[in-house]
Amino acid sequence: MSTVQADLYPSRQHKAPSWQQRIDPVIYRQDLQDAPLTMEQLSRFKRDGFLVLPEVFTAAEVAVFKQELERMSRDPEVLGSPAAIREPDSGALRSAFAIHRSNPLLARVARDERTAGLVRFLLGGDIYVHQSRLNFKPGFQGKEFYWHSDFETWHTEDGLPRMRTISCSVLLTDNNPWNGPLMLIPGSHEHYIGCVGKTPENHYESSLRRQEFGIPDDDSLSKLVDQGGVAQATGKAGSIVLFDCNTLHGSNSNITPSPRSNLFFVYNHVDNLPTTPFDGRPPRPDFVAERGPVEPLEIGPQQYP
Amino acid sequence: MSTVQADLYPSRQHKAPSWQQRIDPVIYRQDLQDAPLTMEQLSRFKRDGFLVLPEVFTAAEVAVFKQELERMSRDPEVLGSPAAIREPDSGALRSAFAIHRSNPLLARVARDERTAGLVRFLLGGDIYVHQSRLNFKPGFQGKEFYWHSDFETWHTEDGLPRMRTISCSVLLTDNNPWNGPLMLIPGSHEHYIGCVGKTPENHYESSLRRQEFGIPDDDSLSKLVDQGGVAQATGKAGSIVLFDCNTLHGSNSNITPSPRSNLFFVYNHVDNLPTTPFDGRPPRPDFVAERGPVEPLEIGPQQYP
Repeated sequence: MSTVQADLYPSRQHKAPSWQQRIDPVIYRQDLQDAPLTMEQLSRFKRDGFLVLPEVFTAAEVAVFKQELERMSRDPEVLGSPAAIREPDSGALRSAFAIHRSNPLLARVARDERTAGLVRFLLGGDIYVHQSRLNFKPGFQGKEFYWHSDFETWHTEDGLPRMRTISCSVLLTDNNPWNGPLMLIPGSHEHYIGCVGKTPENHYESSLRRQEFGIPDDDSLSKLVDQGGVAQATGKAGSIVLFDCNTLHGSNSNITPSPRSNLFFVYNHVDNLPTTPFDGRPPRPDFVAERGPVEPLEIGPQQYP
Repeated sequence: MSTVQADLYPSRQHKAPSWQQRIDPVIYRQDLQDAPLTMEQLSRFKRDGFLVLPEVFTAAEVAVFKQELERMSRDPEVLGSPAAIREPDSGALRSAFAIHRSNPLLARVARDERTAGLVRFLLGGDIYVHQSRLNFKPGFQGKEFYWHSDFETWHTEDGLPRMRTISCSVLLTDNNPWNGPLMLIPGSHEHYIGCVGKTPENHYESSLRRQEFGIPDDDSLSKLVDQGGVAQATGKAGSIVLFDCNTLHGSNSNITPSPRSNLFFVYNHVDNLPTTPFDGRPPRPDFVAERGPVEPLEIGPQQYP
């Protein structure tokens, strides 16, 4: 399963940041007939590296998901799991990983044709869930999350060889410009920034709270923002955000009373299974990065509850 | 100059937050003939407690101001002054107070009919500068500033008796929804939230970096945002933001590369001079809060440089 493979996207290996062009496609599907997205949406995804689709899930469906989240935030089994990330002070649930395995209802969202169906099309074939989680970002004290490329981490720490991975965020609260929404740098997915600083041991435990390695340098960020600007992924609850694994993203803090929560599914093509991590560290746990063997996801229409 | 006066807006005196209606006018001027603002602008200011006026200063004027700020950020006299607030780590200039006294060019901005002229009209008579400063909010690492009413601090720590004070911020960089712009709660100026927690000694030294006292409680904030929402004061460089002393405001962090800088003038009516601080602490220094005697500001048209 894990074989030695050439490192096509080196990072955290040199004292100065590096910059290279992406060598992988953004949309793998060749035949665009019968696409579940319009031509305009497809070309925006290709150009920007992300796409916001407004109100894909109905208010009634969102209510079902939120009720389940509410229940999970009080469930001792969820709170006690190693896959749960809790607030240092209050102990409140901030993230729960591997929800596609542990939660039957949310596992169906992971297989929904409105989420996975779109990604299977974009990635041109069978996919599986590389990572899933639910996120709570509280109001008043919501912390910022600094710019990063998920692929930089998944490649370096998990050994994910190529850029053939797409994230799908299902917004469960309204995301407004002022309550710390996801921000993305359009076009940044076409470049790969090699970062400075070697991964420390057990980095993942702290990095899920606050990333300190795999951080792009100021000059690269400025150049990319000069080219593409900054976009905020705003939308009503029920909207989804699809973004390429290499699109730089982050979020500012949130002092407003409005919390944000979302479901987050990372889909990877079955031919792109993780190999040995490129930073020489032991692989991260399965609940953060699925290492296989995997079955292709059985995608179809779903109904909730 | 300082006489004992009834505390009409108590705060930091009780164990539970309090909530009272504003007892002062928002616009003091009775005769609205010959107003330097339209009726629509006047009624928005009265209703919301703030007003953004786009591109009041030209790009050429903004360039003159920015050049002066650039010079000041390298001037040893400015950097060494007690009126300068510097970044803990880098030592970079973050704020410089009392610029209307120390800097002849910026003193003219303080007397400009496009800033002070509007406020003199709104406050219905002669005004002076209670506080002035320039602010740099850097890109990448711009910190959040939590919700507060300036009046709560000026009343409690400076002894400013009544709400007859208006701030004018001159934007020197573009303020976008994503780079941590000023946020305000429309309508919040009509209510006064008495805060919990007694002012500690020398509070002002830390409070200019991060406010920890005079912070409204979560329930009051939620109620006010439910009523009025959250507004972001966005605009191109050269725009100005006028806001009432009691309008709740704050800002999220800024991880984008775009810094923000502004000039900030607080105008107070000459009949509303600070009296003895209501928290029993010694008054804050003059560069943070002018205590008089004062001369009415000589307001007129200005040209730059």
